[in-house]
Amino acid sequence: MSCRLTATDFISSGLTVEQYAVSLLDRIKSRDETVQAWAYLDPEYVLAQARELDKIPMNKRGPLHGVPIGVKDTMYTKDMPTQHNSPIYENDAPIVDAGPVTILRNAGALIFEHKGKTTTTEFAAVFTGPKTRNPHDSNRTPGGSSSGSGAAVGDFQVPIALGTQTIGSVIRPGSYNGVFSFKATWDSISREGVKISSLILDTVGFFARSVDDLQLLADVFRLSDDEEPSAFELKGARFAVCKTHVWSQAGQGTINALDLAVKLLREHGAEVEELVLPKEFSQITQWQRNILEGDGRVSFLPEYNLAKDKLDPLLVSFIESIAKPSKRDYSASFDGVASLRPKIDEITGRYAAILTPSVLDEAPEGISTTGNPAFCGMWTALHVPVVNIPGFSGSHGMPIGVSLIAPRYRDRHLLNVSQVVGKAFEAGGGKPAL
Amino acid sequence: MSCRLTATDFISSGLTVEQYAVSLLDRIKSRDETVQAWAYLDPEYVLAQARELDKIPMNKRGPLHGVPIGVKDTMYTKDMPTQHNSPIYENDAPIVDAGPVTILRNAGALIFEHKGKTTTTEFAAVFTGPKTRNPHDSNRTPGGSSSGSGAAVGDFQVPIALGTQTIGSVIRPGSYNGVFSFKATWDSISREGVKISSLILDTVGFFARSVDDLQLLADVFRLSDDEEPSAFELKGARFAVCKTHVWSQAGQGTINALDLAVKLLREHGAEVEELVLPKEFSQITQWQRNILEGDGRVSFLPEYNLAKDKLDPLLVSFIESIAKPSKRDYSASFDGVASLRPKIDEITGRYAAILTPSVLDEAPEGISTTGNPAFCGMWTALHVPVVNIPGFSGSHGMPIGVSLIAPRYRDRHLLNVSQVVGKAFEAGGGKPAL
Repeated sequence: MSCRLTATDFISSGLTVEQYAVSLLDRIKSRDETVQAWAYLDPEYVLAQARELDKIPMNKRGPLHGVPIGVKDTMYTKDMPTQHNSPIYENDAPIVDAGPVTILRNAGALIFEHKGKTTTTEFAAVFTGPKTRNPHDSNRTPGGSSSGSGAAVGDFQVPIALGTQTIGSVIRPGSYNGVFSFKATWDSISREGVKISSLILDTVGFFARSVDDLQLLADVFRLSDDEEPSAFELKGARFAVCKTHVWSQAGQGTINALDLAVKLLREHGAEVEELVLPKEFSQITQWQRNILEGDGRVSFLPEYNLAKDKLDPLLVSFIESIAKPSKRDYSASFDGVASLRPKIDEITGRYAAILTPSVLDEAPEGISTTGNPAFCGMWTALHVPVVNIPGFSGSHGMPIGVSLIAPRYRDRHLLNVSQVVGKAFEAGGGKPAL
Repeated sequence: MSCRLTATDFISSGLTVEQYAVSLLDRIKSRDETVQAWAYLDPEYVLAQARELDKIPMNKRGPLHGVPIGVKDTMYTKDMPTQHNSPIYENDAPIVDAGPVTILRNAGALIFEHKGKTTTTEFAAVFTGPKTRNPHDSNRTPGGSSSGSGAAVGDFQVPIALGTQTIGSVIRPGSYNGVFSFKATWDSISREGVKISSLILDTVGFFARSVDDLQLLADVFRLSDDEEPSAFELKGARFAVCKTHVWSQAGQGTINALDLAVKLLREHGAEVEELVLPKEFSQITQWQRNILEGDGRVSFLPEYNLAKDKLDPLLVSFIESIAKPSKRDYSASFDGVASLRPKIDEITGRYAAILTPSVLDEAPEGISTTGNPAFCGMWTALHVPVVNIPGFSGSHGMPIGVSLIAPRYRDRHLLNVSQVVGKAFEAGGGKPAL
């Protein structure tokens, strides 16, 4: 079934853009009632775009020629409403692309747009789930806030989708839906036209079903390390496993996954040591909360003024709890996290990568809330790149992933490591088949 | 002439919105050929909006009811093209307001929009001037990148205008055009829908002809300090004058203005001591350049991919000079500035405010470049609030202002101090009459 092709597979498949798009639209048609990954989708428009792309002569085709991409409904796209899962923006249709969409469209991608947007929680800032369901079990959440993006890629409806992460909105749905997800170094990908929740935390990320596809995106977005990363092999490589200060929250699924991940790395000849971060890192959880609440006061004031009654209570509370946190606490939190960034670069730089949990456990039951991002938040605040590597499963057979971390601006190195580690986990783990 | 009213004056004047708007449009009509502050302006649309505002019953009027506001052409506004002074966005007309515009419109402001935008340098990121001229001397630059906003307020075409500052794009045009300008603490005002040049540097700011008007805006944007600032008086207040590590670049106009400012503060009973910042602060100029160049690679990649040939050479150089700065230098610069923010808060907190130059000298001749922001950049990178206080003039009678600085999130305190200091300078200085 060609809908199961990754973007990289499709590029070398000889299929036309239309053929691949048809297979995805068929998949969506048969699955949408169950998964509901899309805020909007107009199949006819997608097909018309696909046929236009097929007409482009070979020598004018971009590196993502015809690659279908889902876009989260917090990013502007031309000719298509951007609603942030909020009734406030019901009639807004900016005819301008967000920065990442411009870059992808210009590289030849087939944006699943014009009434084609993947679902999000309200403004990507709350934990109340949208209608979307986990493709592995429709009684469970696909995670959030990039709910539709994670579910659509996990369900073979598109090979690639865009998301954003402020705490854990890319890594968590990556884990829950059994796919690779990648949060690049903060501010290494344009956020132009992407709804702001927190300037210092929001980060663009991607969902895909192979690291090759993530590498393709990294090329298009010109991610580059200072040193060209060399070929990576597990034999002799040095990893650290970091359980973090929130380890007590880990469920059995994550405990088993992390154990198995360490075992597999060692079986492939890697050294894995346990890393306990200096105590000061445990303050990040509270600091991040202060930053989120302080930034929320600023980011959602326009919508609060416009239509407070149409805003999620969490967002209203940001504005109305004026004294929480104080500006002094906000600055101390902002500066505290900043002081740890060079430290985590130094620590992480001692290893091929740091291995750490992505989630508490497999996706919880129900779709009313999108799950707990406790293991993700620290790395987002520290601005380091993170890849969720799928390959494990919980007690109900639902997917569980683990995260790999590298220093800031070593995104290409991290992708190289992730490719090799991903293959090792795939071969040795308990990846659930859909 | 009612066009000379400040927003605060207008609110208590008894004039209708239409009457005030007519006086401003008349002013613009007589002056636009000389000053050219507007990228677009449709007087009929402005008048129609004004008449609509006049129909709103008293009890439904917002705090900025009918206050005319100019918006820089890097901020989205409904029904109006946002072009960033770039041919790339010629056909873009997002029907969505930027965050600050939403807040102002919701407070009842009369946005001078629908083909009404104040001019900017390309993407507010280069130093090549737009068509706009200094209202005090049309052979001189009004500064930039918020060129039209500074000139329109300086020329009595609107009482208030919005700008943005990444290095010195609010404070410098404030000084050149002889008006108050205010760069709030970084991230204390929503930047939603405002073109990104640098996430960590870009800051929203305002132009006005009185501190009362800036206070009005601070109310609407809910700027608040941890402690409600008490009434301020100069007698016994302690100031520092900080000449900074770029003092050798100051021209005679700024040297005289700063001397006179110190003299006036002392005459009013304030203590003024000289402050020499620790040597590490002198690194900020280079750090800020690294941050700007590094962020430029990310922020302008969408436009570079779309139409490299239509992009200013400076922006192209950001993308193409991949190795400059290295990612390591970028991170060191980012972290270096971050480490100084709590230090400048502590130092600045010892004083009522720090007095420092706004500009090298009066506005230079010619409009091809927008002048040098050397004195502004440091404070922008440090995220502290800055107010340009007009009241001085250079050897050609052109306006010169000086800056007051406070710790982060003490914006309201700084405005209180600025109000008193502004009056002292106005009474004792050589403010040029237009």
